[in-house]
Amino acid sequence: MTAIGIIGSAGRMGQALAAAVPDLGATLAGGIDAGGDPVALALAADVLVDFSTPAALERTLAAAREARTPILIGTTGLAPAHHALIEAAAADIAVLQTGNVSLGVTLLAKLVREAASRLGPDWDIEIAEMHHRHKVDAPSGTALLLGDAAAAGRGITLAEARVADRAGLTGARSEGTIGFASLRGGSVAGDHLVVFAGEGERIEIGHRAENRAIFARGAITAALWLAEQSAGRYSMDQVLGV
Amino acid sequence: MTAIGIIGSAGRMGQALAAAVPDLGATLAGGIDAGGDPVALALAADVLVDFSTPAALERTLAAAREARTPILIGTTGLAPAHHALIEAAAADIAVLQTGNVSLGVTLLAKLVREAASRLGPDWDIEIAEMHHRHKVDAPSGTALLLGDAAAAGRGITLAEARVADRAGLTGARSEGTIGFASLRGGSVAGDHLVVFAGEGERIEIGHRAENRAIFARGAITAALWLAEQSAGRYSMDQVLGV
Amino acid sequence: MTAIGIIGSAGRMGQALAAAVPDLGATLAGGIDAGGDPVALALAADVLVDFSTPAALERTLAAAREARTPILIGTTGLAPAHHALIEAAAADIAVLQTGNVSLGVTLLAKLVREAASRLGPDWDIEIAEMHHRHKVDAPSGTALLLGDAAAAGRGITLAEARVADRAGLTGARSEGTIGFASLRGGSVAGDHLVVFAGEGERIEIGHRAENRAIFARGAITAALWLAEQSAGRYSMDQVLGV
Amino acid sequence: MTAIGIIGSAGRMGQALAAAVPDLGATLAGGIDAGGDPVALALAADVLVDFSTPAALERTLAAAREARTPILIGTTGLAPAHHALIEAAAADIAVLQTGNVSLGVTLLAKLVREAASRLGPDWDIEIAEMHHRHKVDAPSGTALLLGDAAAAGRGITLAEARVADRAGLTGARSEGTIGFASLRGGSVAGDHLVVFAGEGERIEIGHRAENRAIFARGAITAALWLAEQSAGRYSMDQVLGV
Repeated sequence: MTAIGIIGSAGRMGQALAAAVPDLGATLAGGIDAGGDPVALALAADVLVDFSTPAALERTLAAAREARTPILIGTTGLAPAHHALIEAAAADIAVLQTGNVSLGVTLLAKLVREAASRLGPDWDIEIAEMHHRHKVDAPSGTALLLGDAAAAGRGITLAEARVADRAGLTGARSEGTIGFASLRGGSVAGDHLVVFAGEGERIEIGHRAENRAIFARGAITAALWLAEQSAGRYSMDQVLGV
Repeated sequence: MTAIGIIGSAGRMGQALAAAVPDLGATLAGGIDAGGDPVALALAADVLVDFSTPAALERTLAAAREARTPILIGTTGLAPAHHALIEAAAADIAVLQTGNVSLGVTLLAKLVREAASRLGPDWDIEIAEMHHRHKVDAPSGTALLLGDAAAAGRGITLAEARVADRAGLTGARSEGTIGFASLRGGSVAGDHLVVFAGEGERIEIGHRAENRAIFARGAITAALWLAEQSAGRYSMDQVLGV
Repeated sequence: MTAIGIIGSAGRMGQALAAAVPDLGATLAGGIDAGGDPVALALAADVLVDFSTPAALERTLAAAREARTPILIGTTGLAPAHHALIEAAAADIAVLQTGNVSLGVTLLAKLVREAASRLGPDWDIEIAEMHHRHKVDAPSGTALLLGDAAAAGRGITLAEARVADRAGLTGARSEGTIGFASLRGGSVAGDHLVVFAGEGERIEIGHRAENRAIFARGAITAALWLAEQSAGRYSMDQVLGV
Repeated sequence: MTAIGIIGSAGRMGQALAAAVPDLGATLAGGIDAGGDPVALALAADVLVDFSTPAALERTLAAAREARTPILIGTTGLAPAHHALIEAAAADIAVLQTGNVSLGVTLLAKLVREAASRLGPDWDIEIAEMHHRHKVDAPSGTALLLGDAAAAGRGITLAEARVADRAGLTGARSEGTIGFASLRGGSVAGDHLVVFAGEGERIEIGHRAENRAIFARGAITAALWLAEQSAGRYSMDQVLGV
């Protein structure tokens, strides 16, 4: 069985990761938090999963390289310097850095890109999402990721296509734009829907998360795949085989 | 058979009304536009249906009162002076003035009000709508009507509960607010969804219009009901029996 | 704080009830299973919640009557003799027996009945539901409860309106029937959708359960309400105030 | 402008095709029905579109070959002998024979196949569809086409995966099966939804047709593409570029 080492094990995601490990046929090598010894953990683990803080990344990567242990990095808020460290580490070990560890969302983004590339500009693209009442930002990071996928399918960037929120006298819709709508309420873990609206018909591609455990499951699934890879940088698309 | 007279017969709604008349077992008494004679039409008709302009309303109402013919008024953009004329006319004839002639939407508003009054403030209310790419305002008038119904069920006004559109760092949702989201694209005639999101569960109440003919059907159905009423003011709720 | 006594405390629902008690501002008086002493529990509790077996019901009700403690009964598989015992107990104590303890579903059924009674027979009624892959029966009990509500709104019984599942050459839909469709897959806790389909428009009324904890929450909420009632029989509709 | 010749011009689809021609920047070369002269039409047209009867196919194909005019065949009920005729004709002219002329459905099938191939057997596949009350068969041909796509993505056939409709004590869901559910009501032109249900998450891929004009638009779009092709057999996938 593959042994998983968790960086940031006391955090909410760290605890969810530990809970998901046995469900997916893996074993827990251990976990550390601020002050813990990453080298010992890296030596004990077949693969590391890091959902901690940017400040810890340099030591963590050095430990992973020293132990030749692959690492999945889900920590958010990385600066360009962190990305440079990750790039350098990939010379020695398998590294997968991502802001999205859901396999379902990864596939969704692939389908959205495919649909956007096949449907002409007379198909309007809109993205709606709903999350629980405690979420403090809009649109969700996943909605923006799906918007990026749609824009890439059209050969443009989301920055040039994204429209400001609609309220008041907006005027008619401009061709080629991508609209976003965010709903908030209750305890919704995360629903996303991408609508392609053409003349007389619509294609709708959506994802519903029932709870946040799917992200831990996705991260562990990706880590198990990463444990088998040689040095280099990898993406969630490759985990899914797309 | 009840004879329907159409004020504004050359407009898009006027033509749709004429097309719907035979489907609903009625007959067409005739139609007029700017310059036509409302008195002759009022005398020939059992009920008038007016989707024209505010400027024509004074002459139209005078004709209806003179002929003692009930009238349904769907004309938009009415000023307070027009409402005073309508109130006065109701002393002599049956009058129904409304911004929404869909029986489905009328029922939906009733259900939304009921749900909002039964579910406590720990159930968040959100309203989403989608319309075709040519629509120039947001949210739709129907979405606002549903928001009014939800607010009324809570014993508040929509003005105090409505939240600005969500983009960027919005912070957590405030209890008691009502959120709106508008999607635009393709040729969608009009979809509306009211979501009540509680802890661990959601209730969703929605309406889908396949085409705009439903508004003409609703107006003719209401007119047939109105033709049987004595003088006074009436609402779509009464047509539906709610 | 109201003290809740749980009959069947070791079962899956019993455990979920115990977990929900503190969330809803109540306290746990204790719990028993087969062989436990219902009299002591009834004396210690302000209200009993029973999700156990029909075989235990006679002793449980006797204890509740002796202690003058209200009781909510969610046990399934009751025979006519059990219902007679419940009816007799209601002379002395407040009793609520139900197969559905979700407040959301209770409201949904009310809205469905209302809609069915207002919309004419030219609006077709269809009920779709989705549950997890382990569910062994179809349609779900909740779908049938919603079908009963729709039929009641039409002034008929579900038995006469329900159509067999559709496969092959079914012929056109018969007016006044109520169709059911069941989907199974994944870990879906329970989604229900009632569709009213008219000429050119649809009204959709649905409920989504994110997890099964909502049933425990609904039962405890109902029990807290029941604790304040005098002797008699009560329903979930009354808990909701509809 | 490309000139379109319609075989079966008096039928419902034939009339819809004629209406769609100018919208899509084409021109009408003419139309024939039983007894008409296919040779004259084939000579006048840049491409033929045939939604008539199997009985007419032999003469129609002979005319198309003689005139070297490409032909799109949407006629249903073809027997093996008709398919042999089509195969032979493709030696001389471009031929596209299909039971589905919607570009949206063609893309949907592609996305469904892709998703089915990427998601493991622990993701259950269910297909729901809704059509108007007059439809006499279930599931719809499009639902079966989507089921074929899902099965192909899994490397199996629909015949081995398709489950009988669910009613009564069905037992738990079997891994690898594909379930179907059909709703009927109102005037719904055709909604389809493919659900992939995994542990804790769902992916949903759907299509909504607002009216039947989309099929005529799809056929004319495909015919315009076919007019530019050399001899051979083609599919809707190629029209879409997938």
